[in-house]
Amino acid sequence: MIEKLIRNIEATEAHLCVGLDPMLGFVPAHIQKKAYEEYGETLEGAAEAVWQFNKAILDAVWDVIPAVKPQIAMYEQFGLPGLAAYQKTIDYAQAKGLVVIGDIKRGDIGSTSAAYAVGHLGRVQVGSKRLQAFHEDFVTVNPYMGSDSVKPFLDVCKEERKGIFILTKTSNVSSGEFQDRGIDGRPLYEWVGRKVAFWGEEVMSSSYSYVGAVVGATYPEQGKRLRAIMPKAYILVPGYGAQGAKGEDLVHFFNEDGLGAIVNSSRGIIAAYRQKGYEAYGPENFADASRAAVLAMKEDILNALARR
Amino acid sequence: MIEKLIRNIEATEAHLCVGLDPMLGFVPAHIQKKAYEEYGETLEGAAEAVWQFNKAILDAVWDVIPAVKPQIAMYEQFGLPGLAAYQKTIDYAQAKGLVVIGDIKRGDIGSTSAAYAVGHLGRVQVGSKRLQAFHEDFVTVNPYMGSDSVKPFLDVCKEERKGIFILTKTSNVSSGEFQDRGIDGRPLYEWVGRKVAFWGEEVMSSSYSYVGAVVGATYPEQGKRLRAIMPKAYILVPGYGAQGAKGEDLVHFFNEDGLGAIVNSSRGIIAAYRQKGYEAYGPENFADASRAAVLAMKEDILNALARR
Repeated sequence: MIEKLIRNIEATEAHLCVGLDPMLGFVPAHIQKKAYEEYGETLEGAAEAVWQFNKAILDAVWDVIPAVKPQIAMYEQFGLPGLAAYQKTIDYAQAKGLVVIGDIKRGDIGSTSAAYAVGHLGRVQVGSKRLQAFHEDFVTVNPYMGSDSVKPFLDVCKEERKGIFILTKTSNVSSGEFQDRGIDGRPLYEWVGRKVAFWGEEVMSSSYSYVGAVVGATYPEQGKRLRAIMPKAYILVPGYGAQGAKGEDLVHFFNEDGLGAIVNSSRGIIAAYRQKGYEAYGPENFADASRAAVLAMKEDILNALARR
Repeated sequence: MIEKLIRNIEATEAHLCVGLDPMLGFVPAHIQKKAYEEYGETLEGAAEAVWQFNKAILDAVWDVIPAVKPQIAMYEQFGLPGLAAYQKTIDYAQAKGLVVIGDIKRGDIGSTSAAYAVGHLGRVQVGSKRLQAFHEDFVTVNPYMGSDSVKPFLDVCKEERKGIFILTKTSNVSSGEFQDRGIDGRPLYEWVGRKVAFWGEEVMSSSYSYVGAVVGATYPEQGKRLRAIMPKAYILVPGYGAQGAKGEDLVHFFNEDGLGAIVNSSRGIIAAYRQKGYEAYGPENFADASRAAVLAMKEDILNALARR
């Protein structure tokens, strides 16, 4: 799947993914209204609003992007109907040829991580059948519990040729609280980065590993260090746009081959219609605003890469 | 909810919770067969088997236990039907007066953690309504991303009077890989433990905080240190039984008041019928075996506490 991700990136020249994190506050009033008229102000109504919002955005941007990253929490908050919308979003994006990165940040003791791994990336045994459940192409994984929590994901990645991104240095303000603490002269995130490189060797495509890392765009210096420590890991880079990072912050996350990083933007794309420069679209044309924002982001990254 | 948990523990004298982690391999063949006859070898069939298994165990043990801890991964692996069984299990256990600890190990950047917090413990705003989704009483939280990933859970706990258990020193073999690394003379898990105590001060019941910690029974020495560092945190202690810990390992996790720890056993209870000493029950009477295993575990803990 890392091969498909790279092919999609090269075909679109867009080193980015669209974070489908549809907080209800981002969903234009007319879409919410229609959904509530049909399903009431219920979890089903919220899930329908979120799904229609995603669908319109996917229809508007699918041909210019390589991948989407739905954040499962934004669906899970609406319970079972919300998770049904998550599933529909995955199905719809994959049918359009997009790579789907499930931002699930799971991680647990061995047998439990195995359940997450088969449920999201692999196949679960039911009687004589092996069935797919959520079937994302990649998922994000939390490494706090150590190797035996990551290993089941590696096994499934190998079997299914899918991939994971391991939280290494996250984009949030307090990510340093534990991740930056010094251990034998190196911050914790570097120790995690070394493990990412080590784990990744087991599951290599020709140039990049099935095992990538999450490193926040908000920490360019740390990104530079981690780029050197994990040369074969694709880096999923959140924090662009709304969280404050710009194109020039991103160049350190890429390799010399012009690959190696995929930058995520969520609200900067999906709620573009509410942002400076895109107001003219209005809520009715929110999806067109998203397309314009994707194209601007693509250019910002390409320009930064050209200037380096 | 910490008050209710303590009341339930005192009423049953059982310092334990039953881990409802129904791997299909634990579900007796006759239950699987019946479910597959009705739903086929599908995700729905697996979910039905899991639900019927849980229901029978709950019916057999509810009056002698204070709480259950369903591990969401074991449901999530069966996709949406599996999560529907998770929801039914929560509803059924709560209707029997049990406290439900959702073992979800979530944690993300602020706005995303907020979505997990409202979806699992709180209420999500949909139009003019504030709706509950999964409505567990407690959930487990992963701290790797730092304070701003934990804070939204604290806010919801305060509002709903619910609680969380923060992964501090987990029970698995490789938990030490990152958690034991020394930072300024202390292992990482101690730094997390200090944060647990600090976060917990914000949301106190009379004697214990709404903020507890997960500390593995497999690490009694570390448990002793953490008990001292976080005197007001209830400790959720996995790793008893199948993972190797015994009653005598557990005493360090308790306070002088005889409270402060709740020990989880999953397969040791739910798959007791397949274990030494319980074979006589046979698969048909698996739920009675579970009850016997609960009572034995209760005695083991009480005896260990009496001997200390």
